[in-house]
Amino acid sequence: MQNGNIQQVDGSVIRRITSGAIVIKGQRDGKSDSRVSSDVNDPSGVFCHVPGRLSLLSSTSKYKVTLAEIQRRLSPPECLNASLLGGVLRRAKSKDGGKRLRERLDKIGLSLPAGRRKAANVTLLTSLVEGEAVHLARDFGYVCETEFPAKQLAEYVCRQHNDPEIVHTRKNMCLATKNIVKELQDLLTQDRSPIGNTKPTPVLDQCIQKPLSQFSAITHGFGTPGICAALTALQHYLTEMLRQHDKPMSLSYSHDKPQSISYNKQKDMSNIVKHDKM
Amino acid sequence: MQNGNIQQVDGSVIRRITSGAIVIKGQRDGKSDSRVSSDVNDPSGVFCHVPGRLSLLSSTSKYKVTLAEIQRRLSPPECLNASLLGGVLRRAKSKDGGKRLRERLDKIGLSLPAGRRKAANVTLLTSLVEGEAVHLARDFGYVCETEFPAKQLAEYVCRQHNDPEIVHTRKNMCLATKNIVKELQDLLTQDRSPIGNTKPTPVLDQCIQKPLSQFSAITHGFGTPGICAALTALQHYLTEMLRQHDKPMSLSYSHDKPQSISYNKQKDMSNIVKHDKM
Repeated sequence: MQNGNIQQVDGSVIRRITSGAIVIKGQRDGKSDSRVSSDVNDPSGVFCHVPGRLSLLSSTSKYKVTLAEIQRRLSPPECLNASLLGGVLRRAKSKDGGKRLRERLDKIGLSLPAGRRKAANVTLLTSLVEGEAVHLARDFGYVCETEFPAKQLAEYVCRQHNDPEIVHTRKNMCLATKNIVKELQDLLTQDRSPIGNTKPTPVLDQCIQKPLSQFSAITHGFGTPGICAALTALQHYLTEMLRQHDKPMSLSYSHDKPQSISYNKQKDMSNIVKHDKM
Repeated sequence: MQNGNIQQVDGSVIRRITSGAIVIKGQRDGKSDSRVSSDVNDPSGVFCHVPGRLSLLSSTSKYKVTLAEIQRRLSPPECLNASLLGGVLRRAKSKDGGKRLRERLDKIGLSLPAGRRKAANVTLLTSLVEGEAVHLARDFGYVCETEFPAKQLAEYVCRQHNDPEIVHTRKNMCLATKNIVKELQDLLTQDRSPIGNTKPTPVLDQCIQKPLSQFSAITHGFGTPGICAALTALQHYLTEMLRQHDKPMSLSYSHDKPQSISYNKQKDMSNIVKHDKM
């Protein structure tokens, strides 16, 4: 989906570089598309700016695409070809668009032979540049945090259990789940996959950072934060489940007014069940 | 991001309907944009076709947007206004674009007063029509299934534990986690939120289907399958963790060649640890 505007923007970038290989360095934070770096020794430099695919109306963001990002997209696991890279960068399809892109990449030391085969399957995630993929993961995190019906789901599941022994076991299972999931979350938080113009110092052993970087490369930064978003929703669900199981038993059966009904026979399970530390 | 092509497509749809309110029913599966239904009594009818935002090059999908979907986007929780709905449907911004869209919606019984306020925060997910949101969730599921480094993560975590008692406890914790997560997955699988032109018969109690439908409405179908994608990755990680903990102990310390090193002192933990059924 290219439009005239984008074509013009990208076209002008291509023309400027191919006609004189003008290197404008150190202007990476500029807002104009003309401020691009084409020095391959500066991988944090900007290759081009790409309009967001998921932007709406006035909030049309432009995402910076760094040389490092281009390098990642051309390398394994994706090994994009000129045609797909052109699509990702939202260049208009044209007769010699691929050739011009290859020429530009050549000039900055990134050779892209004609007819190369891409290595990974194309998915809808392929079309996202890293800036937008990270943005999308953040927004997914936001809706998981604010809209996932963790409480209602937990209430629903807990209503199916009223035997005190089962409730006791379930509480321990929920606590165990919280621990095991937290362990994974803590591990994923230490992921230091290179993204955009940053290449952070690894914290984790190379044997684990490398596959995490590969996962990041194939999802352009969406993967790990996307999974973390869902794990946060899971933690909310578990917290609500523990809260429900701690409630006086008879409340578990109040379908209509779960907060207000109270029977005399209610027992406070919190005195019976201890939170086991696992 | 609208282009001339889309403007033409959408413009022609608007003109056709406003000039004569032509109702072409029962041609929902047609490929041309002209085959749209404008009968509000047939919510499974197609309002328009929208080019995918995340499509690349030749795989430019067009997604059907049903009247039911339009109704959902105009209702709570989102309550889109004409301007945002126009953006979602990729109409070109124009002086009276909002007015024309409102007129068209009016004709099919969906009134959209000028100046109404949207109810939900706009995120990158807002711009996706249901067809593409579901497609994106499927693709996220695919990369979670094929690319998430579950095995390497599990190996890494398991290497940090060698005390047989701790390993025993950890195995039980992993089994508990698998159970609790499976319970949530099974529940989410029963979600029957309306999507596209389907309004499936609910399986779950209304008290839980309603909030799930709300979550689906705000993410246009991405939310629950997106979370399920991550939970599948989590299950793979847990399975690998159990497999690791079942391995002879000393293997846990072989950083370089985890598959080949074998010490005499190795003990087969599988004889000591039983898989508790929880």
